[in-house]
Parts: sequence; structure tokens; C-alpha cells
Amino acid sequence: MATITVPQAVPSPADDAAALLKAFQGWGTDEQAVIAILAHRDANQRKQILLEYEQKCNESLIQRLRSELSGDFEHAMYYWILDPVERQAMMANAATKCIQEEYPVIIEIACANSSAELLQVKKAYHVLYKRSLEEDVAAHSTGNLRGLLLALVSTYRYEGDAVDTKLAKSEAKIIHEAVRNGTTDHEELIRIVGTRSKAQLDATFGCFRDEHGTSITKALPHGTDLTGYLRVLRTTLRCISNTNKYFAKVLRNATRESGTDEDSLTRVVVMRAEKDMKGIGDAFQKRSSCTLEQAIAKETSGDYRSFLMALLGN
Amino acid sequence: MATITVPQAVPSPADDAAALLKAFQGWGTDEQAVIAILAHRDANQRKQILLEYEQKCNESLIQRLRSELSGDFEHAMYYWILDPVERQAMMANAATKCIQEEYPVIIEIACANSSAELLQVKKAYHVLYKRSLEEDVAAHSTGNLRGLLLALVSTYRYEGDAVDTKLAKSEAKIIHEAVRNGTTDHEELIRIVGTRSKAQLDATFGCFRDEHGTSITKALPHGTDLTGYLRVLRTTLRCISNTNKYFAKVLRNATRESGTDEDSLTRVVVMRAEKDMKGIGDAFQKRSSCTLEQAIAKETSGDYRSFLMALLGN
Repeated sequence: MATITVPQAVPSPADDAAALLKAFQGWGTDEQAVIAILAHRDANQRKQILLEYEQKCNESLIQRLRSELSGDFEHAMYYWILDPVERQAMMANAATKCIQEEYPVIIEIACANSSAELLQVKKAYHVLYKRSLEEDVAAHSTGNLRGLLLALVSTYRYEGDAVDTKLAKSEAKIIHEAVRNGTTDHEELIRIVGTRSKAQLDATFGCFRDEHGTSITKALPHGTDLTGYLRVLRTTLRCISNTNKYFAKVLRNATRESGTDEDSLTRVVVMRAEKDMKGIGDAFQKRSSCTLEQAIAKETSGDYRSFLMALLGN
Repeated sequence: MATITVPQAVPSPADDAAALLKAFQGWGTDEQAVIAILAHRDANQRKQILLEYEQKCNESLIQRLRSELSGDFEHAMYYWILDPVERQAMMANAATKCIQEEYPVIIEIACANSSAELLQVKKAYHVLYKRSLEEDVAAHSTGNLRGLLLALVSTYRYEGDAVDTKLAKSEAKIIHEAVRNGTTDHEELIRIVGTRSKAQLDATFGCFRDEHGTSITKALPHGTDLTGYLRVLRTTLRCISNTNKYFAKVLRNATRESGTDEDSLTRVVVMRAEKDMKGIGDAFQKRSSCTLEQAIAKETSGDYRSFLMALLGN
């Protein structure tokens, strides 16, 4: 469930565009007015406002916002007003250029979307970059890392509930073999994680736990892995197993007292606020002493905080 | 361009269904009547006839045809009256069970279709088999063979004309390195062939030819390759480079005097008659002393021949 709130009587896109223009004019920007409008409109409404504003003011609302706002707030607002599908294509493209650091973005787009949603992102990628997401991921990675990430962004996964229990058992065994081998022979593990349906993987991961008394992520070796593959595999397994729990963990890490990770915080809140942020918040609270809103409020400030709070439904 | 011909005034699906029922009744089947109807209706018209027949006769036309007809004719008619997308999903599924022999089917479906067409086949595969084509291909292959075939069926290729000439040069070099290495390190070659757009690959293959005076398929080692990977790679390169020429070659091999390959003949004629058979026929004639129709007529007989000839527009 989404956390953003849209007023029952939504002003017309023309009225919203006029109110935004007013917020930009005069001495300084009225950031609160910008938040009051844009944080409380759904993707389609934001799109209409963009079109109205561009027609009325003969300038891009996106560009205007970028020049009016600054810092983390500007960054968050920029991603927020983009079309959700194009936003993901742009995030994925940026991530392909530094896969070693930005791999979670690729994993999230590949694994937290449905097959149809991922396909929409790939189509938008074609239009924006005149290339495929697949070729960019493949060209910027090698070995097991490429094998896994390429399968994740490529496969049009089956999404039904059909599960083959015998297969789950035999593939749990194959995964156990691979885990014992370190990272030397993960071809079969990558095939399984990269192509099987989520329901089938759920059964396989369950068999693994039943048989070995631990999850695959915990069973993976913890040694140094210079290729980064093991980190990517762990993240993938978590994101596939339980999306809400996965995002809750990302947010927990991003709001640590030892230092806030604004990029991850912005990414997850902007990407999920209109989708499943409610469930992520619930998953967050299960493992924390405070609510997600409290944790984020504590680690952020100013307009950035106000904006995130608004997206979280406060 | 298609080769099948549809009469200007097409009878109603109800009239066609009645005529088919008549052809089935009495002593023996009137195969010529069946051909006269079904070989001259497009996919949508055939679908309507199937529905009408089923409603009118309370039995499946497909099943009835299978019991009325026999041999290669029955086989060809069976594939012909299936929905073209489902037909490909079914052919692909059968091929995954004996990839070493049936790999051309998978390559053709992956490489001779547009990205959108391949996606339709993958969606139909989900519905029919409660699994993805990707997982079946991956589960029935290993090593380079899997790497290549999985990339082919997975990637949602970019289809624009945009070409990066510098990239084409550098990737032609990478391919040359791989070709020199035999099959030991084809990871980069598989990445390129499996993910780049056809326009980009065209440029890369052109650079290779300019630089080395020969095509990649000819430069590939001809030694024994027990995994079958090299054969699959050659077939892939041919199918991607020039679809018409590729299918013409399949048909040339299938109509050799030393023995007709009815399975390949049926597959190509049925799959392409409604699509691009005209161009395939032209490509066939460029390298043969006779027309495609003559070659097929010489190697086939009876109703099977009549049916193929009808699909070829004779």
C-alpha cells in the first residue's frame, strides 16, 4: 500500500501549475508550497501538472525545480516528479556506470518489479538511451557478477503460484553445493536465482532452510570477494525473498546514527511511496525501536525532511 | 512478404466450418478441400474457423484434423492451424527438451522475431507451461551453450538503427580474440551476440569482415566440439546476420537429394509463409539452380506437397 495522500478535491493541473509558479516567484522559493502540492499528487496528476506548467510558462518544470531547490531536497524532488517508469530507467542507467557501488538499484528494479513492470522500464530505457538495459549491464560487469545481474534484468519471469516441490528440493541441494564451493562454480546457482519464478524460489529457499537450518544468505562465505559478486548475490537473495523486509533493511542502514545515506533514503522513499511504503514501514518497525517516520525525521532536516515526511503520509 | 493467398471474397467462418465438416464426412477425408480452405486463410481467419467449428460440432477442429489426416501432412496442418504465437511457444518448449538437436528452433524464435514478437511467445509460454522459456532453456543446457541460448531468449533487444562505430570496431576485435581462443573463453563474444542490437551487430560483423577478410562463422574453428556450442553459435550468427538467407539455407539443406528433412521443411514453411516467405524464396533462388517451389515439389509428394505448395502461393 502507498503512503502518499492525495486530497479528495484535487485542484486542476492548471491551478497547481499556477500555484507552483507563484511559489517560485518573489524573493526565495516557497518550498512548503511546492511540497504541499507535489507531494500530494499521484504520478498521473504530476504528469498533467508538468504538461500544464510547460505550456503555461514555456519552460520545463523539472528544470525550474532544479534551479529553485537545492541539496537532498532538490535531488528527491527531481526523482519524484519524473515519470515512475522513466525514473527507474534513468536510475538503472546511472547504476550501470558504477555497478560495484550502485548494484542495489539494478537489483531492486529487476526483482522488486513484476515482469510487466520491468519490461516497461526496459522499453523506456530503449527510448531514452538507444540501447538496452541488458547490454549496458553486461558491458559493465564480468564473470559471476555479470551472469547474475544480466539474468536478473533479462528474464521475463513466470509469475504464477505453480511450484514444483521436487524441483525445489533438488535445486536447494544444487545451491548448497555452490555455497560450499565458495564462488568458484556458481553457474547453476545463478541459473536458478536468475530464471526461476519467485514462488518456485520461495519453495527452494524454504527447502534450503529446512535442510540446513539457516538461510542461503547466512550460509554464504564471508571472506573477501574482490569481484563484489557475493555482496550482489546476498542483496539479490534478500530482495527476492521478501521485498518489504529488504527495503526496510536498506532504510535501517540509511538512517544509522553513524551517518545518514541520503541517496539510498531518497531512492527507496521516492520509488516506493506510491507503491508499497506502508508494508515497508511495518517491516521496519518490527526490527526497530522506533517507527520509520521517527527514524527518518531524526536523521534528516529542513525541507528534505518535510518532503520525505509528506511522502510517508505525515 | 507473405506467400499465402487469401481469396478476395472469404466465406464466413461458419461456411468454412461447415465445408470442413463435409470434407471429413463420408468414406475417407477430402484432403484437397481441407487444403483449399485452411491454406488460404490468415491466422485470424483460421482462429475464427476453429471457434465456429468447435461451437457447431462440439469437438476440437485440431483434434479432428489430427485424426483425419496423417504423416507429414497432418504434422504440417497441425502446426498451421495453431495460433502463430502459441505455435512458437509449443515448438520452443519441445525444443528445450532436446536442445542438442532442436536448437535451431530456439534460435529462430529468439532471433528471427522482433523483441515484441519474442515477448508474445514468452507470455504464451507462461500460460501454457506455468514456467518461463528462460528457465527451461537454462535448465536443459550448460556452459557456453547455456550462456548463448539464455541470452538470446532473455534479452529484450534494442531495435533502433543507432550504431556506435567505435564500439563496433572494438567489439569486432574482442570477437576476433575469442575466435582465436577456440571455445575456451567466449564470455565476451556471448555478451556481444546475446545483448547488442541487430543494427549494432551488423556493424560489428562488418568490421570483422573488413579487418580479417572473412566472416566470423567462417573464422570459427572447425574442430570437434562435443558440447555442440560452436554449431549453435554458427547458426545464431547466420540467423542474426540475414534472416532470409538463413532460412533459405535451412530449406536448401532440408530439400537435399540425399534425404529430405521434413521436420525442418514443415517448420520453416509453416512459420514463415504468412510472414516473409517471399524474401526467403528469393534468397533461395540466388544460390540454387531452381526455385524454392521446384525444390520442395521435387522432394515431397501427395497432400503434403499440395499443402506446402498452397502455402508458398502456388
